[in-house]
Amino acid sequence: MTPSTNPNPSKLAMVPFVSVDDMMKIVNTIGAPKMIAEIAEYIEADFLRWDMFDKTPRVAAHSKEGVIELMPTSDGETYGFKYVNGHPANMARGFQTVTAFGVLARVDNGYPVLFSEMTILTALRTAATSAVVAKYLAPKNSKVMAMIGNGAQCEFQALAFKEVVGIETVRLYDIDPAATEKAVRNLSQSGLTVVACSSAQDAAAGAQIVTTCTADKQCATILTDNMIGSGIHINAIGGDCPGKTELHKDILLRSDIFVEYPPQTRIEGEIQQLPDDHPVTELWQVMAGQAEGRTSESQITLFDSVGFATEDFSALRYIRDQLERTGHFVELDLLADPDDPRDLFGMVQRASME
Amino acid sequence: MTPSTNPNPSKLAMVPFVSVDDMMKIVNTIGAPKMIAEIAEYIEADFLRWDMFDKTPRVAAHSKEGVIELMPTSDGETYGFKYVNGHPANMARGFQTVTAFGVLARVDNGYPVLFSEMTILTALRTAATSAVVAKYLAPKNSKVMAMIGNGAQCEFQALAFKEVVGIETVRLYDIDPAATEKAVRNLSQSGLTVVACSSAQDAAAGAQIVTTCTADKQCATILTDNMIGSGIHINAIGGDCPGKTELHKDILLRSDIFVEYPPQTRIEGEIQQLPDDHPVTELWQVMAGQAEGRTSESQITLFDSVGFATEDFSALRYIRDQLERTGHFVELDLLADPDDPRDLFGMVQRASME
Repeated sequence: MTPSTNPNPSKLAMVPFVSVDDMMKIVNTIGAPKMIAEIAEYIEADFLRWDMFDKTPRVAAHSKEGVIELMPTSDGETYGFKYVNGHPANMARGFQTVTAFGVLARVDNGYPVLFSEMTILTALRTAATSAVVAKYLAPKNSKVMAMIGNGAQCEFQALAFKEVVGIETVRLYDIDPAATEKAVRNLSQSGLTVVACSSAQDAAAGAQIVTTCTADKQCATILTDNMIGSGIHINAIGGDCPGKTELHKDILLRSDIFVEYPPQTRIEGEIQQLPDDHPVTELWQVMAGQAEGRTSESQITLFDSVGFATEDFSALRYIRDQLERTGHFVELDLLADPDDPRDLFGMVQRASME
Repeated sequence: MTPSTNPNPSKLAMVPFVSVDDMMKIVNTIGAPKMIAEIAEYIEADFLRWDMFDKTPRVAAHSKEGVIELMPTSDGETYGFKYVNGHPANMARGFQTVTAFGVLARVDNGYPVLFSEMTILTALRTAATSAVVAKYLAPKNSKVMAMIGNGAQCEFQALAFKEVVGIETVRLYDIDPAATEKAVRNLSQSGLTVVACSSAQDAAAGAQIVTTCTADKQCATILTDNMIGSGIHINAIGGDCPGKTELHKDILLRSDIFVEYPPQTRIEGEIQQLPDDHPVTELWQVMAGQAEGRTSESQITLFDSVGFATEDFSALRYIRDQLERTGHFVELDLLADPDDPRDLFGMVQRASME
């Protein structure tokens, strides 16, 4: 093998790995609010080149306990996918409801170039996506957000909306007061005014933005029609798989609905409650100026968020770009890379002699 | 968190990782022929419980240079998937044509339990599958195999057929004599009689089994009709993606064709040359005694191999079972596992204080 055809064979075998510990260090080095805002820029940039992406609904394996999903996409140059589970009963058993990891690879030769934890990164990118979308859809000068459901996603959402949208007050509610207490504690140094509320209705009072993020795997009614007045932006995070919704259908019928990728959202989102031809607007069209977002002060806008593969791709792209900046990764010996690509067996055989 | 609900939170965050170096050590500890035979037993056992598996055609991202695929499956208790690329032009550029890695996870909580290189493991399981199938389909007392295409898969196939089927002689041919020389060298201590041949026709002469394993991404004709007499078993490995075949259509029409999973093989296998309703037999049916395999000495049997997710699942299951036996793995900090699953943000925040 000459240097010109294979300049660096040993390095090719190695793939940078960002562990949970590395990811926490990256977050704490950059700062969570700044990092969310930077990821939001990557997400927005990728929504603005929507046509370049291979898009497919996620590949889901459902069981009675939950779901395991693979979410692949590609921009023609880089391929990415995320492995993610959703197991609502996990929390009570001491496990995370959602864990995830992801990979980026080169399209031209298929070699992985990044392997990363994505449990933390998914929380960051979900919050970043919500905030980017609210920038386009929420009432101008929104200052108060209700957060219904104070689980693992809660603080990330609050910080994202402060940093990207300019929210100053979050009004928290959870059926479990301990979850709200946890969020109040974690947000105490955030610069946000944090208000613990006694009901979902109480939390929504006076809010321009209502975020729902609960984890029951069922058709729940977290928001009822009477809680939602005119001129509200609803950021609905938790209705994200078949049989799992959070909003009363009447709210949907009063809202203009915005989605990431309709074929996926119709299966997984709040709109699984509606007929398949109910009109929805694709977010990329709003961002690209090809469709209208908020058109009046009294309009109810609803982001029916289910999470899409391009957002994970954007987040992984961002992490790859931070590797040199932060140095928080290790190299994994993931790829067999014999000097002669046809001599895989010889490589294994010779390893026994070393 | 009480011990009863979360007995071992820190261990939950860790996932065993089998690197390329670890896999080579596992192969060399167990011995390649024995390991292939053991994997073959896992593959056969999983074919015999075919109904238990979630089956879906692989999810492929095609580009002009090649393909990147995700191959998921589940037996209801364990979920597995493989990432694999196929880039025929890689070899000339000093990269592997195929690289792969895989994951096993618990269905009940979605947590990964094994992350492994699969470039080497795929070579082992592909050979193991071919050999298991030949056990059912090849003529009794087959002793001579032709190997057309002497690339990365060649030696693994040869060893598999020696160990599982009882082959004593391999007749090698490749359009590149250097590939054949490499295989002759690597098999010199294998106990096989190894014959380098000057043409595909020469290689096939006197063989009861003909294995084709070439890598061009095109419809090639590696075997022409006149090379294949009666009473032959053809093990066709290389025709494994759309637009890539190795056999002349006339051979297919003279053969009884056996496949792993028809919906995938009709897209990717040799039978993409045939009408969609051309009869094929599923391998699991033959193994379970529900369909006939070889019925006469003069019959031509064809295993139209494309590789199926359950085979990777079987191979990963095998590797997981070797972890304690061999000790060749490291623990990766892949899963965020806060003491309170809802307190992901607090975990990140507190990490900065450590």
